[in-house]
Amino acid sequence: MTSEGEEAAFETGIKFGSLYHQFAGTPVSPASAGSLETAMAEAIENQPHCVDVTVEILREDLSAALADGPADYAELTGRFLDVEIVIEYGETEAVARMEMEDGYPLMRLVSVE
Amino acid sequence: MTSEGEEAAFETGIKFGSLYHQFAGTPVSPASAGSLETAMAEAIENQPHCVDVTVEILREDLSAALADGPADYAELTGRFLDVEIVIEYGETEAVARMEMEDGYPLMRLVSVE
Amino acid sequence: MTSEGEEAAFETGIKFGSLYHQFAGTPVSPASAGSLETAMAEAIENQPHCVDVTVEILREDLSAALADGPADYAELTGRFLDVEIVIEYGETEAVARMEMEDGYPLMRLVSVE
Amino acid sequence: MTSEGEEAAFETGIKFGSLYHQFAGTPVSPASAGSLETAMAEAIENQPHCVDVTVEILREDLSAALADGPADYAELTGRFLDVEIVIEYGETEAVARMEMEDGYPLMRLVSVE
Repeated sequence: MTSEGEEAAFETGIKFGSLYHQFAGTPVSPASAGSLETAMAEAIENQPHCVDVTVEILREDLSAALADGPADYAELTGRFLDVEIVIEYGETEAVARMEMEDGYPLMRLVSVE
Repeated sequence: MTSEGEEAAFETGIKFGSLYHQFAGTPVSPASAGSLETAMAEAIENQPHCVDVTVEILREDLSAALADGPADYAELTGRFLDVEIVIEYGETEAVARMEMEDGYPLMRLVSVE
Repeated sequence: MTSEGEEAAFETGIKFGSLYHQFAGTPVSPASAGSLETAMAEAIENQPHCVDVTVEILREDLSAALADGPADYAELTGRFLDVEIVIEYGETEAVARMEMEDGYPLMRLVSVE
Repeated sequence: MTSEGEEAAFETGIKFGSLYHQFAGTPVSPASAGSLETAMAEAIENQPHCVDVTVEILREDLSAALADGPADYAELTGRFLDVEIVIEYGETEAVARMEMEDGYPLMRLVSVE
């Protein structure tokens, strides 16, 4: 009723939604960005079928946002994130990315093969 | 590079991961279960391609868990949840469910067609 | 080693931090704001010593933010929230509010008496 | 209307509620516990008045819980956590801890002075 490619894509989506809604809102500064990147990747890599998670917190964008206001930290949100997730399900590998498009973070399925 | 079915499955997975990791940990009692069910469903239905979300908080299981301890509320977790999500992507409809299997909550892609 | 007023204030702070970091990031639209307000209030009212929680999602500010972009929902954040929490601890009542100050949401202890 | 001690206690409570409800539900294994501890501490230390946060994920309790089931990771919850937070507000220092009591995690204000 479902193909292996669809199952792989479903698992990839779960990981993206999990990563984003678990960690969005976390207080983050340029100094703490490194430990948060590592923790996010290692947390989601625990989930089934998850082969690799790469999280980059965009320090320049974060610093630019902080320069506009009185606080020295921000809440983590999609505009500060570049994420890639790789899933293996059976013989199929799926890759997805979160990237900015028209100023909005977009989760995108890159390939299923 | 990706089929419409895979895209639909990916979107369905995103909604499941979002729903679970946004609301897991929420303080919940039998009395507050109804408002939380409604809010969870309506929140996720805001997301793109999401046609229908049904959330049931399992009040009997929740009450049984509370009977064992000193607190009158619990943190929301998968053992108290029955969820169905329906996505439409192009001409394709995908359905996924979260259900208990061997005592563990499992997110499962039911159909893509 | 701690006074009743300090304990009341501590409990009030816990509720504020809980409410904010549990629900920040939730997808919200003007249409779903009502169910989310109710669920947030009822969830936190489950916690010990919590007498009353009032949550208002600022629909005008939310609509204005959505008018600037392509999406028809936003992630819940402090700029869309007006919250008041009342705690009773022993004979002491503590009240706290979240309100905007200089464009930033600020959690403020209003009274302990 | 509020004392410095009450303000310090309020800030301490905010940090505890934030830490708990931001990170509860995070997938965690003995192997990923270290990066999550560091990220949790550094994230909350960004918040105002927060001098020191110590997070210990109880690996023995986590391993014991995993030995009972089919999964090799768990969702982070209070039974796996030992946390201490130190706040300075004006001339006042407040310390709070989360510790298990009767099998339930309890947030406790240790001292305000």
